Amino acid sequence: MKNEASAILLISCPDQQGIVCTVTDFLMRHNGNIIDLEQHTDTEEAAFFMRVEWELNEFALPRDQISEKFSLIAARFDMKVDLHFSDYKPRMAIFVSKFPHCLLDLLARQSSGDLNCEIPLIISNHPDLETIAKMHGIAFHCLPVSKENKAEQEASQLELLKQNNIDVIVMARYMQILSDDFCRSFPNRIINIHHSFLPAFVGAKPYHSAHQRGVKIVGATSHYATGDLDEGPIIEQEVMRVSHKDSVESLIRKGRDLEKMVLARAIWAHLQNKVLVYKNRTVIFS
Amino acid sequence: MKNEASAILLISCPDQQGIVCTVTDFLMRHNGNIIDLEQHTDTEEAAFFMRVEWELNEFALPRDQISEKFSLIAARFDMKVDLHFSDYKPRMAIFVSKFPHCLLDLLARQSSGDLNCEIPLIISNHPDLETIAKMHGIAFHCLPVSKENKAEQEASQLELLKQNNIDVIVMARYMQILSDDFCRSFPNRIINIHHSFLPAFVGAKPYHSAHQRGVKIVGATSHYATGDLDEGPIIEQEVMRVSHKDSVESLIRKGRDLEKMVLARAIWAHLQNKVLVYKNRTVIFS
Amino acid sequence: MKNEASAILLISCPDQQGIVCTVTDFLMRHNGNIIDLEQHTDTEEAAFFMRVEWELNEFALPRDQISEKFSLIAARFDMKVDLHFSDYKPRMAIFVSKFPHCLLDLLARQSSGDLNCEIPLIISNHPDLETIAKMHGIAFHCLPVSKENKAEQEASQLELLKQNNIDVIVMARYMQILSDDFCRSFPNRIINIHHSFLPAFVGAKPYHSAHQRGVKIVGATSHYATGDLDEGPIIEQEVMRVSHKDSVESLIRKGRDLEKMVLARAIWAHLQNKVLVYKNRTVIFS
Amino acid sequence: MKNEASAILLISCPDQQGIVCTVTDFLMRHNGNIIDLEQHTDTEEAAFFMRVEWELNEFALPRDQISEKFSLIAARFDMKVDLHFSDYKPRMAIFVSKFPHCLLDLLARQSSGDLNCEIPLIISNHPDLETIAKMHGIAFHCLPVSKENKAEQEASQLELLKQNNIDVIVMARYMQILSDDFCRSFPNRIINIHHSFLPAFVGAKPYHSAHQRGVKIVGATSHYATGDLDEGPIIEQEVMRVSHKDSVESLIRKGRDLEKMVLARAIWAHLQNKVLVYKNRTVIFS
Repeated sequence: MKNEASAILLISCPDQQGIVCTVTDFLMRHNGNIIDLEQHTDTEEAAFFMRVEWELNEFALPRDQISEKFSLIAARFDMKVDLHFSDYKPRMAIFVSKFPHCLLDLLARQSSGDLNCEIPLIISNHPDLETIAKMHGIAFHCLPVSKENKAEQEASQLELLKQNNIDVIVMARYMQILSDDFCRSFPNRIINIHHSFLPAFVGAKPYHSAHQRGVKIVGATSHYATGDLDEGPIIEQEVMRVSHKDSVESLIRKGRDLEKMVLARAIWAHLQNKVLVYKNRTVIFS
Repeated sequence: MKNEASAILLISCPDQQGIVCTVTDFLMRHNGNIIDLEQHTDTEEAAFFMRVEWELNEFALPRDQISEKFSLIAARFDMKVDLHFSDYKPRMAIFVSKFPHCLLDLLARQSSGDLNCEIPLIISNHPDLETIAKMHGIAFHCLPVSKENKAEQEASQLELLKQNNIDVIVMARYMQILSDDFCRSFPNRIINIHHSFLPAFVGAKPYHSAHQRGVKIVGATSHYATGDLDEGPIIEQEVMRVSHKDSVESLIRKGRDLEKMVLARAIWAHLQNKVLVYKNRTVIFS
Repeated sequence: MKNEASAILLISCPDQQGIVCTVTDFLMRHNGNIIDLEQHTDTEEAAFFMRVEWELNEFALPRDQISEKFSLIAARFDMKVDLHFSDYKPRMAIFVSKFPHCLLDLLARQSSGDLNCEIPLIISNHPDLETIAKMHGIAFHCLPVSKENKAEQEASQLELLKQNNIDVIVMARYMQILSDDFCRSFPNRIINIHHSFLPAFVGAKPYHSAHQRGVKIVGATSHYATGDLDEGPIIEQEVMRVSHKDSVESLIRKGRDLEKMVLARAIWAHLQNKVLVYKNRTVIFS
Repeated sequence: MKNEASAILLISCPDQQGIVCTVTDFLMRHNGNIIDLEQHTDTEEAAFFMRVEWELNEFALPRDQISEKFSLIAARFDMKVDLHFSDYKPRMAIFVSKFPHCLLDLLARQSSGDLNCEIPLIISNHPDLETIAKMHGIAFHCLPVSKENKAEQEASQLELLKQNNIDVIVMARYMQILSDDFCRSFPNRIINIHHSFLPAFVGAKPYHSAHQRGVKIVGATSHYATGDLDEGPIIEQEVMRVSHKDSVESLIRKGRDLEKMVLARAIWAHLQNKVLVYKNRTVIFS
């Protein structure tokens, strides 16, 4: 689709007149051809959000000067700014426990070129999925977590993440709760999949609860992990119809497809730098 | 579709061998041509549910003898049995407050022949929708409800329902909570619409809560009203995708379509005698 | 949501550098506070599309000078430009035949304030729905169409439309094909609803064809009517799952809900000036 | 869910009185505990369809006598009968070309226990996916097909299928058309995935056509392959919303998820013996 490298600015700031005009003028003056521009104004919060992507090949500024040159505009509008380049491949670590379906799905997507990332590291609290990791040539570290050793194991995890220059963590049905501290080390960079339509059925065994309540639709939710369990900013959700004929087992079976798809879409949006977090909610550029 | 009258048996009982065989044998022996038969076994609860519909025109038993003749079978299998006839038009009362969309939708459906029922009565706690009732030639009773007069007004409502031989009550965005006693007077015959995907966002202002939480999908739920607010057996749910671009107002606007559709589907299933309630859940025959 | 009047520019032009910058600069210079801005670049066609909405209350230009003042920019970028004002209520004519459901739905939506338009005129080729028109106080004209009198009746229709200053025509299950000439009199202003998921099941009796083919999903499509039957630019589509249990009658019954919803959404997008037509396709701003 | 073996009867016959009664009586007399029973009457075609599943552990007839003992009933009602056992693992061959996503998805599902089948054989007209086959320890045969050698290569394919006792063939984006003769060798046992919402966009490059037509929803269809390209009985379909923002490339990318899910669901229904074919349509038991 896009063969040449492009740059992406993600901008949040208080809503003011002239933002779009000023940003696009900046790009035009440096000969930046805009490929995509999307803005959103939250009138209730008087907040402004913008994603703009432009081609780099004729752009007059070298990559390492863009932030500096843009800093005057950023300061003027009190902007929070993130700059990304489309040809950088983020490095992803996958946390798993015993269920293989999300892991297998992500690895299949990477094989077929659907995920624009490197996956150098899989961390688990169980040894079960090591075979899959090996089959795909990915380092696998088994760090069983208990109440007693949690702090210690999280330190080891953080060390591994650092060694591998990890940009983003995916919890692919990792059945452990990350500590608040751990989450704060990767703010808005830990993507979790929860097997319910949040905020319905927070916590453990959501399919059992859904069956018990007799809902006619079940869902899955991908969100950024925070210290508050299942309360982080929602990136993506999807649902499917079920009926009285579905046992808990059948909900679990069907739900796996939801989990895989929702997690994959959330990761894709994140990797394309299409997500902005604001007040525990997300702006997802299209 | 079906021009001739048919009879419908709704059966719930403990799961046992020989139920389908015995029931179908009973119908065959009296020359009943089965149009539709659907059964469901809840293996976890060891419970059996069945809906069977057969043509009456060649059926050897007169309508008023069916229940009696079937009572031996019912006793043998410890069945709870409901008998309905397709040519009976149930009488529906609609409870409303100020929002007209669900009421208008139901009246439009009745006009176009989509609802197999009579609507002799509209009850409201506000006078706003009287014009609509009059336009459609339906009796409208305004019974404003306060903490002080609730018991009294519910007594008046029950009297009106009785006078009008009401079979089923629809709460078409009626913004009052019915008392436990009132609900028990019409068990599994009061259909409510709640403007969220239950059990998410129970109670007041669910669209505000959905917006606050930043969900990517909103829903509506139709359920039988019970003494526990928003906790009754769910009949139907539907959802739609939303995004960060949707303000609370836009959720409310879009949600109206969900509410109308979900309520209409739930009423349709109820009027077709396709709903069985069991342990606060529903079996919805298709 | 928006209490004050706003202005909307819909722009199409060849893709070039500097469009967003120039347009937003124009608005800023005249003190226009942008409420919403959305742009789309079709890279394949090298075409650019934009919708920008800004508040009028502090805007420095009077309404009747905006087009003229903007004309220099329009000329420079070879733009096709449409200017709309949010407080103008478009005048809609509804064409119907015998099926009332879409008409009733639109009238109910107008009653509940969901449609920002006037509906002064209903035209039909059958007398059946006159009662509904009268009930809502809308002029009803019955113009039966045959092969012989088609040109003549279309002339009468056009005369009625002119007399009533009609901006947009909605074919609410109008079972006649409008002539090419007629369509050209209201380019991209005649909204039709077709009861299939186009391009599947073009033409008559799509539910019968869907049943015959054994599809598992049926749909409805709203599009601008053109001289090519069912080939006009698609505005909105929606689908629902069906199964082998659905007879043709049941598809027709369920499909009515799709038709109503899809038509209403298409009309809403049109009335909000969110639709741009390009090469027989639509850009639908969100 | 079901730990013990069960037997399944799939029955099609002209609609008559007494079928359900007779079949359930047969099972009861031999002490068969019915787990699931579903019937469908196509009143228009006067055709009757039934799936009944019962536990084998207390069933009085040995497996190899069931068909014979049932043959009197089958003859009396002019039934077409298929008998299956839940503990038999069907043997599946997968046909592929160059796209890996459906193959990878099926292999991942098998790894995680979601597919109740053996996969001893992958056949392709290209060598590209051999690595994947090897990685999973599955025999891979590359049989390039041209106009000239098609008959010969199909003979080789049939020979391989025979040697491997293949029960069902899955065309996982196999980009060749199977001959009429070949299809007839595996009637209703070749499952294809077509990347459009059939009957829309038959044939090659459906995403290109969908983009060209400007549809707002795209789909995928799984059907049994017959000699008529894309005209076989539809097993499952699914759709997703798209917009003007989706390029052909983006439709292709998003569509892969639809293709994988639809194909997997169709295979699952087939392997669970839940599909009956009738007049080029399917009855899918739930």
